[in-house]
Amino acid sequence: MSVCEILSVGTEILLGDILNTNSRYLSLELAKLGISVLRHTTVGDNAERLAAALKTALERSDIVIATGGLGPTQDDITRDVCCQVMGCETELDSEIAEKIKAYFDSKNIEMPESNLRQAYVPKGQTVFENNNGTAPGIGIKKNGKCVVILPGPPYEMAPMYQESVVPFLSEYSEGSIVSHTVRTMGIGESSMAEICADLLEKENPTVAPYAKKGEALLRVTAKAENTDEAEKLCEPVIDEIKSRLGGYVYGIDSESIEERVVQLLKEKKLTVATAESCTAGYISKRITDFPGTSNVFGCGAVTYSNEIKQKLLGVKAETLEAYGAVSEQTAREMAAGIRRVSGADIGIAVTGIAGPGSDGTSKPVGLSYVALDAEGVQICEKVETGRNDREYNRYVTGSRALNLARKYLEDK
Amino acid sequence: MSVCEILSVGTEILLGDILNTNSRYLSLELAKLGISVLRHTTVGDNAERLAAALKTALERSDIVIATGGLGPTQDDITRDVCCQVMGCETELDSEIAEKIKAYFDSKNIEMPESNLRQAYVPKGQTVFENNNGTAPGIGIKKNGKCVVILPGPPYEMAPMYQESVVPFLSEYSEGSIVSHTVRTMGIGESSMAEICADLLEKENPTVAPYAKKGEALLRVTAKAENTDEAEKLCEPVIDEIKSRLGGYVYGIDSESIEERVVQLLKEKKLTVATAESCTAGYISKRITDFPGTSNVFGCGAVTYSNEIKQKLLGVKAETLEAYGAVSEQTAREMAAGIRRVSGADIGIAVTGIAGPGSDGTSKPVGLSYVALDAEGVQICEKVETGRNDREYNRYVTGSRALNLARKYLEDK
Repeated sequence: MSVCEILSVGTEILLGDILNTNSRYLSLELAKLGISVLRHTTVGDNAERLAAALKTALERSDIVIATGGLGPTQDDITRDVCCQVMGCETELDSEIAEKIKAYFDSKNIEMPESNLRQAYVPKGQTVFENNNGTAPGIGIKKNGKCVVILPGPPYEMAPMYQESVVPFLSEYSEGSIVSHTVRTMGIGESSMAEICADLLEKENPTVAPYAKKGEALLRVTAKAENTDEAEKLCEPVIDEIKSRLGGYVYGIDSESIEERVVQLLKEKKLTVATAESCTAGYISKRITDFPGTSNVFGCGAVTYSNEIKQKLLGVKAETLEAYGAVSEQTAREMAAGIRRVSGADIGIAVTGIAGPGSDGTSKPVGLSYVALDAEGVQICEKVETGRNDREYNRYVTGSRALNLARKYLEDK
Repeated sequence: MSVCEILSVGTEILLGDILNTNSRYLSLELAKLGISVLRHTTVGDNAERLAAALKTALERSDIVIATGGLGPTQDDITRDVCCQVMGCETELDSEIAEKIKAYFDSKNIEMPESNLRQAYVPKGQTVFENNNGTAPGIGIKKNGKCVVILPGPPYEMAPMYQESVVPFLSEYSEGSIVSHTVRTMGIGESSMAEICADLLEKENPTVAPYAKKGEALLRVTAKAENTDEAEKLCEPVIDEIKSRLGGYVYGIDSESIEERVVQLLKEKKLTVATAESCTAGYISKRITDFPGTSNVFGCGAVTYSNEIKQKLLGVKAETLEAYGAVSEQTAREMAAGIRRVSGADIGIAVTGIAGPGSDGTSKPVGLSYVALDAEGVQICEKVETGRNDREYNRYVTGSRALNLARKYLEDK
């Protein structure tokens, strides 16, 4: 099996200015080709360190994919350094130069002269067209090693990878790695691992536990000659995990609880509406992260203030007075209110204290109530994350509200 | 100046299951201590490769910070491998063992036996308390090198870093790096770089351009003996950039356009309400990412369907009929509608086609209209991203709606 390393170039990553999402994207995609990723490395925009990192990576691995540093500015050195290390001369590709000029013309912007640097490519090697920017990508195969150079912006890198790099790497794609994730909600990572302890010792497939934003997950990964064989190795292990963990499992691979809810709504031809206080649109945003949700979702209310909770959702002043905004009673009235206003089949609601500050009452940060209202059914759950982390509390509370909808829909 | 490398451990990162946010966090924080981060490396849960990566990193750098692989399960090998490489024996720390037991007791969960592995620490070295989980962190100083081992989950790692690692690293904290980001909206990266070409050649501070989700940014980074000196080096360069780029600049360092808008709303004691179609709560979520926004934001409407646009916001049926949901006229009526319903000073609205599919009309994916309605003012802008990327289109469209509010508030 071919092994690959991913080399990110950019001082902005080492300074923490940007998050390295490219390495993750490429890792996911390379696994589909059955190419093992052994290492991620990030170096700054420094020719010497980049050259050293590339040389070391090539000693260990068949393929190195470098991203970033292909831009038009002086600190963009990746193209030149990689060509030097691979012993390739560069030349001006007049076709690419024309294309870059045309790209600027089409946007009615005069081309900065520096953009022409992007038209230099290594002689006799492969150039990948960039349909979303000006810097072309480059593929070099020489002395039994392969170096792929891609632009840094994810919206240029990802389409170029799919269009050009996948075919370029086809000769390395022997065998397949298949990875599935069993997703749970409501059980801790170590308890889950204890229940599956013997499975974690397996070698093919491997089973590895991890925790992620209020969820405990198990990753099952098999390697085999082809995808079918790898799938066959995973299947019985996943079945075993599901039978051991039962109702905690909310999905296999479905990327998230919101994806599972949207899937169930489509299957059952039902609609949901959201009423959000502390999450303030986070749940509706997550539901609509997928295209084609307009048949299952039409309406959300972000009722951050008490006044708007009353006005838009009909929450009673007495309820807010007697129990406060963060209470089971308010959550229930919000869920019922949004269902009434929207005409949706299911209303879900959240009210809570995301933190870091308290809400001026004695209620703790991380406390929230999630409620569901549907024909003949009303459910409310108390959520206590015990954490003083706004983003975490808003995300997990949203997940728990979505989980109410998941359980309701699965039982229906 | 001390140099540091960050070593992330976890097969789940190499498989692309999770995004490596720890490296970014640590990079940002280490810069504040004046410690240069030279490299990020990620290896899987493999003892041999982890040991090799740690050894190489220690040859180049004074400090290595390893994260991940401290959990209770068998594939968590970081503690053992790092102690071996540093030549440290481990022993059971009974105090930590008690704490781990107490942690489980407090949650009314029986402790899985495997969790006791987390109580083994290197003799004579430093143990960092974990107030948000069970695995303690470890700090080793030996033979002139420093290795810090932290748990992988960000909500455990970050507080431990602040509480224990900052003081542990104090002897390495000589001099300071200060980095500021000049943020613009409405100009491309290469045009911006062209205008500032001579500044990009500077050595201290360095000036580096990059692009990020519909924005072009310039990062100004200075190194000096202390923070004050570094700030003084940055200041004139930032002023020069601001005077060259003028109205394109929306902020210095303010992390995002929404942060700038919230800041301006607080300054001017005004309130905003949102009406969102394609962004479906993304804008209200972004506005409330900050604590203490309840004085400036109280209400949002997510009107994904045409029916709800009419019902909640009073958009006219004739408008939707004549111009469609994605039109200047609809955006204007949405902004006016949410201002009326909410009683806020400013209403902002978005309607557009996020993609990947079209909306069934001839309008292109990536087209949207953003509108603002306030006392005596109504503005609408057309946004065309030209991209078929749902997340990008929703984010950038939201930014442009927020930018309307920014410009309105700055002029007010």
